[in-house]
Amino acid sequence: MDFHVSEEMSVRLTMIREFMENEVIPLEGEMLHGTAETLQAGVEAAQAKVKQMGLWAPNHPVEFGGLGLSMIDHGLFAEAVGRSPLGMTVFGTQAPDAGNIEILHKYGTAEQKDQWLQPLVAGEIRSCFSMTEPETAGSNPTLLATTAESDGDDFVINGQKWFTSSADGAAFAIVMALTDPDAPPHQRFSMIIVPTDTPGFSLVRNVSVMGHSGSGHASHGEVSYQSCRVPKSNLLGPQGSGFLIAQDRLGPGRIHHCMRWLGIAGRAFDMMCQRANDRVIDGEGAKLADRQVIQHWAAELDAEIRGARLQVLHCAWMIDQHGPKVARDEISAIKFVVANTMLKAVDTAIQVHGALGVTDDTVLAHWYRHERAARIYDGADEVHKSSLGRRLLRQYA
Amino acid sequence: MDFHVSEEMSVRLTMIREFMENEVIPLEGEMLHGTAETLQAGVEAAQAKVKQMGLWAPNHPVEFGGLGLSMIDHGLFAEAVGRSPLGMTVFGTQAPDAGNIEILHKYGTAEQKDQWLQPLVAGEIRSCFSMTEPETAGSNPTLLATTAESDGDDFVINGQKWFTSSADGAAFAIVMALTDPDAPPHQRFSMIIVPTDTPGFSLVRNVSVMGHSGSGHASHGEVSYQSCRVPKSNLLGPQGSGFLIAQDRLGPGRIHHCMRWLGIAGRAFDMMCQRANDRVIDGEGAKLADRQVIQHWAAELDAEIRGARLQVLHCAWMIDQHGPKVARDEISAIKFVVANTMLKAVDTAIQVHGALGVTDDTVLAHWYRHERAARIYDGADEVHKSSLGRRLLRQYA
Amino acid sequence: MDFHVSEEMSVRLTMIREFMENEVIPLEGEMLHGTAETLQAGVEAAQAKVKQMGLWAPNHPVEFGGLGLSMIDHGLFAEAVGRSPLGMTVFGTQAPDAGNIEILHKYGTAEQKDQWLQPLVAGEIRSCFSMTEPETAGSNPTLLATTAESDGDDFVINGQKWFTSSADGAAFAIVMALTDPDAPPHQRFSMIIVPTDTPGFSLVRNVSVMGHSGSGHASHGEVSYQSCRVPKSNLLGPQGSGFLIAQDRLGPGRIHHCMRWLGIAGRAFDMMCQRANDRVIDGEGAKLADRQVIQHWAAELDAEIRGARLQVLHCAWMIDQHGPKVARDEISAIKFVVANTMLKAVDTAIQVHGALGVTDDTVLAHWYRHERAARIYDGADEVHKSSLGRRLLRQYA
Amino acid sequence: MDFHVSEEMSVRLTMIREFMENEVIPLEGEMLHGTAETLQAGVEAAQAKVKQMGLWAPNHPVEFGGLGLSMIDHGLFAEAVGRSPLGMTVFGTQAPDAGNIEILHKYGTAEQKDQWLQPLVAGEIRSCFSMTEPETAGSNPTLLATTAESDGDDFVINGQKWFTSSADGAAFAIVMALTDPDAPPHQRFSMIIVPTDTPGFSLVRNVSVMGHSGSGHASHGEVSYQSCRVPKSNLLGPQGSGFLIAQDRLGPGRIHHCMRWLGIAGRAFDMMCQRANDRVIDGEGAKLADRQVIQHWAAELDAEIRGARLQVLHCAWMIDQHGPKVARDEISAIKFVVANTMLKAVDTAIQVHGALGVTDDTVLAHWYRHERAARIYDGADEVHKSSLGRRLLRQYA
Repeated sequence: MDFHVSEEMSVRLTMIREFMENEVIPLEGEMLHGTAETLQAGVEAAQAKVKQMGLWAPNHPVEFGGLGLSMIDHGLFAEAVGRSPLGMTVFGTQAPDAGNIEILHKYGTAEQKDQWLQPLVAGEIRSCFSMTEPETAGSNPTLLATTAESDGDDFVINGQKWFTSSADGAAFAIVMALTDPDAPPHQRFSMIIVPTDTPGFSLVRNVSVMGHSGSGHASHGEVSYQSCRVPKSNLLGPQGSGFLIAQDRLGPGRIHHCMRWLGIAGRAFDMMCQRANDRVIDGEGAKLADRQVIQHWAAELDAEIRGARLQVLHCAWMIDQHGPKVARDEISAIKFVVANTMLKAVDTAIQVHGALGVTDDTVLAHWYRHERAARIYDGADEVHKSSLGRRLLRQYA
Repeated sequence: MDFHVSEEMSVRLTMIREFMENEVIPLEGEMLHGTAETLQAGVEAAQAKVKQMGLWAPNHPVEFGGLGLSMIDHGLFAEAVGRSPLGMTVFGTQAPDAGNIEILHKYGTAEQKDQWLQPLVAGEIRSCFSMTEPETAGSNPTLLATTAESDGDDFVINGQKWFTSSADGAAFAIVMALTDPDAPPHQRFSMIIVPTDTPGFSLVRNVSVMGHSGSGHASHGEVSYQSCRVPKSNLLGPQGSGFLIAQDRLGPGRIHHCMRWLGIAGRAFDMMCQRANDRVIDGEGAKLADRQVIQHWAAELDAEIRGARLQVLHCAWMIDQHGPKVARDEISAIKFVVANTMLKAVDTAIQVHGALGVTDDTVLAHWYRHERAARIYDGADEVHKSSLGRRLLRQYA
Repeated sequence: MDFHVSEEMSVRLTMIREFMENEVIPLEGEMLHGTAETLQAGVEAAQAKVKQMGLWAPNHPVEFGGLGLSMIDHGLFAEAVGRSPLGMTVFGTQAPDAGNIEILHKYGTAEQKDQWLQPLVAGEIRSCFSMTEPETAGSNPTLLATTAESDGDDFVINGQKWFTSSADGAAFAIVMALTDPDAPPHQRFSMIIVPTDTPGFSLVRNVSVMGHSGSGHASHGEVSYQSCRVPKSNLLGPQGSGFLIAQDRLGPGRIHHCMRWLGIAGRAFDMMCQRANDRVIDGEGAKLADRQVIQHWAAELDAEIRGARLQVLHCAWMIDQHGPKVARDEISAIKFVVANTMLKAVDTAIQVHGALGVTDDTVLAHWYRHERAARIYDGADEVHKSSLGRRLLRQYA
Repeated sequence: MDFHVSEEMSVRLTMIREFMENEVIPLEGEMLHGTAETLQAGVEAAQAKVKQMGLWAPNHPVEFGGLGLSMIDHGLFAEAVGRSPLGMTVFGTQAPDAGNIEILHKYGTAEQKDQWLQPLVAGEIRSCFSMTEPETAGSNPTLLATTAESDGDDFVINGQKWFTSSADGAAFAIVMALTDPDAPPHQRFSMIIVPTDTPGFSLVRNVSVMGHSGSGHASHGEVSYQSCRVPKSNLLGPQGSGFLIAQDRLGPGRIHHCMRWLGIAGRAFDMMCQRANDRVIDGEGAKLADRQVIQHWAAELDAEIRGARLQVLHCAWMIDQHGPKVARDEISAIKFVVANTMLKAVDTAIQVHGALGVTDDTVLAHWYRHERAARIYDGADEVHKSSLGRRLLRQYA
């Protein structure tokens, strides 16, 4: 066993961490209190520097200008960049584009790649992913009700989606729709590329989430598909392979998410410890850091984050070694473990900050609001626990 | 022992619950998605009905048009009204006015009552309470740094406060300031009435809390006092009695808060159960309510809420019987017990709602954001646990 | 609402608490380190004093020499007496006799009462209750496999039971057996009185539990019924009413158990606080009680015990007012709430005692071992949570 | 990063696991229900086989016939062998001998090694470790009150120890005693070898722990040292180096303990899953494993064990790479993390076993009793959390 990070990746991580500290985290003030314009200007300046450093979108394959990172290195990158809500965007790896790029790489036709992948990687357009529906339970995706009926050379799509994040301003959506109602449940759905200017595609609203409906990239669209017609050449991968594609990107996406969350947890931990050292609590100069309960919180959180982190890295290693199928249990487990660890870190850091913690003078309240969904999207905690538990128990039957 | 609610109060509670259900909860849509104007109109119409029903501001003494409720009945009222974020305002018992009214009743001079209490009770003006400071730890109020120096017949106040909630638009603040630096620590501070148009009083900003800086009543002011001069006749109660007054209102205020939180917990529980029954999760029509884990959540939450509720009612009874001093341990305990139970109820209800839970299509995300502070203000969980624990352990010394 | 204990009961409780402190708790040394003989002598001497004080078996109806206590007073008695593992025996209210006495009172024929109830109340014989089976799941009692076949005027019983506690030395067992296999599931079983000298009744072994197989009253028998024949006059209550009788005693028995557990929790809490004050932890004389984490434990445990206690008393009041059927939800809830609170109190007290806590120099390790079963018998936590949760959720369907 | 176990160790682990399954676990029946003699015979037969397999005492250095394992491999060995309470004894690595052997290797003089180490390694004698005292807090070892006064060429030892485990029948004790009261606190104590037949050494009692006082190896001695005189040549290492030696063995011992606990956790998990698959819970043949709550427990426990295991292996790797000093934080963290994970696994497995779980028909109740101390000895959870937390927070000062 060997827990060393490769020399090459260590060097990169040092660069990234410094850049995050010096260039990205200072932009958070603009995010929390500035205008969209001043923030945008700051982000673009930072993106330019990232490109100069040769670290733009390192998740892409080498032939597309990425770094061809292993899962483990990909994860370490996501952790470093996850320390600020702005990190992913500054490094060109923000959701949902990152995931869409992955499946376009793997399943896209040459035409699809020319038309959609190239400008997406170049950052010229944005995209969205349209799967979740308001009226069907996300815990059971075979219930999805949006249909794509075959009509000659076209599919005609009808249905209602929401949490089509970043739909506002996106050039195209990748839509999960029922194409083969008579196939076995997990072969009934397909992914289809739908340009957002297709007649019948309409952005009903940016759903207000945790107090803000947002706009542009920072939005969660409710989208209506009404007789929305696209050519069958917009099918991504084979017909009926919707779940297969979803599954296939699961492992990599999971590592990405979980390590980003660990970046959040790590930063929240640092902020907590810093605050505990800064805050005087009595007339003799004692500080919060001198209180035993705070010490225990630090110890417990440190151990919990450390354990969660090793689990994700081990999972990434398994995917690197054996592919996502073999790592299925680990992929399920890290979802609920890390989401909860991250939220606990944020919540504890807020508590240590006291009144300051609920204000927007720090980034903590932002995470408290916007990362609560981590326990819900991509399979709620309970979905993963049930399926993992069933698989584990079955081995003893 | 007898757990019956009095006949008279039972009748009132039935009226209040129905009114909440039919008139107040439907206004939440305006709060979440409407304009300030449409909301204000709705609230005022509801307030008018409450006054007609003779239930306006029932926390006031009978001679001021209130109902002279016992602590227990006061608590039951707060629970019923707490089921909506709009309830307190509709019934004329919103913070911070309610607390200010209490101490003005008890400690105000005749002139102070004429000038400030009467219009406050009548709803003609609003007030704020100015104690918390950004640079001193709330866990130890003897550290407060704002001073009120004696200068002839005046006090000259200097300092920086925040979470002076509702300062924006308030007619006056009740300020906690150091008047007697050489007295024993708990006799150093006084409460002073400061009209907000006094030179030297300035609202620096409405602090952005959980994504919104708000305005008017729904705001958390940062206030600067710079050589802010008020006559000594603005002193509330005897000089040096700041903590005494704060302490004195603690018990009643605590019951009020905790039962309001139980109102939130109860509504979140109801919403959770309703959603679990509505949400279909497979092709055979099974519902979330059929899942064992959801059943356990319901059982655990029901038991936890029930236990918390009985503790608060018992505490209220102790205050009614023996006064807040004897009930000191109970008053400490219910603070951390109920705040956590309420937040757990809200969080669990969000989880059961899935993606819908983080949107503003329900009131849950509002509570998730705005009630997080319940574990911090009025003494953080840890402050109460430490002081209660010390008192308990000392009995065995 | 009124949380006062009646004057009469207050007087009794004071007597009982003093007696427990001065006469019963000192006997624990004999239980933990002495011989069966010296313990027995001490217990009998204490029992004699209890009878002199007129407090023997107060759970019995007045006409049988008991005190005819309400559920609430019964509960308060059980709490006071539960502070020592010897309390119930010293006061003549030990399981399983207490429960058997209750159902013999209610369902026994005149002959059954003469033959079994009278000597049982007088303490001349012991009894046992034979329901649980090793090979069927206790979570679903309709699976019980022991049969009582009708054969003329007799029942012929066949089956295997365990946790027939105190079977060793008992004069008779009350056996739950299948008499009506074609009736609806909950009307298939009956309770039958089986003298332990009946041919075919055999005590296979005293099951070793947590390291000890024990003997006499302190044992958990595995019992085999092989063509064990008893006259039909031994039927308790109507045929097929086994579950009804079991259910009927549930409420009262639950109060009894839960308040006894709260007695344990209260004593463990006291021991913890005492130890924390006695234990010096540094060269300056600081004590465990000075540590913030211990203070928080005390505060959290105090609040948890208080809440659990109020729930049980409220449940007892509901049974007193409306009978056990109406209090069904409360009866389910207190089982899992109080069992867990008690075990947490014991576990925390052990931790504060350090190495001493795992020794038998205190009573804590005894409770740790022998009360773990509280989360299992009489319906495991999970059984109660599932059934309570289902009932709660159904109200919203 | 690479999570592979070495080829050589993999082969060994397969052998050990099979041997545990086929030869050691079947002996547990003798431990739980047999006589000391039949158990001893079984253990000795198994030990003989282990020696034949060349796997005896693999923790020893190669020159002493051990395998010279790295910390990681040592840990993997301990995990495999920890699956049964008999494993360590069967493989010749039982506490406290294993730890004593380590420090005798490192600090013993040639004479000490000849006299004590050789026969100890050969299994001809047993030893004990005498540090904990009943009257001083284990959380602060500088409070230890046992003294070793210099008197010519001898030390004269006075004091009272307990939890001198296995003192009953041991040939010698290694005693921690105050030799240099005027030195800095952590240089005041020394370790001294005391043959148990030295006048003044007396085994006061085998302390009854969790219901049993035990005897021989399975005992926890209270030992009195009264003017107990030994030559200064019995000093282990330099005078005043008691804490250094204790610290030095901490890392390795910690890995050993924690991985043994993970062996317990793993076996408890397996037993839980097996039971869940075997237990029928309704008339249609549904099993416990079909219940969602059980599935969640399995998933949560699996993830928790996995995370804890990776933490220990990572810690072992750090010790292998950088020595125990650099791994200090990890060594603190794994203590409280793994002890709690193990106890949770045992407790959950008991709950799934229902009534069977509290009996001695399985090994679970044995662990429940005897492993509770894992949260106390070797530094209670709270000691480690406080010291780790302080170190972490100090980095931000």
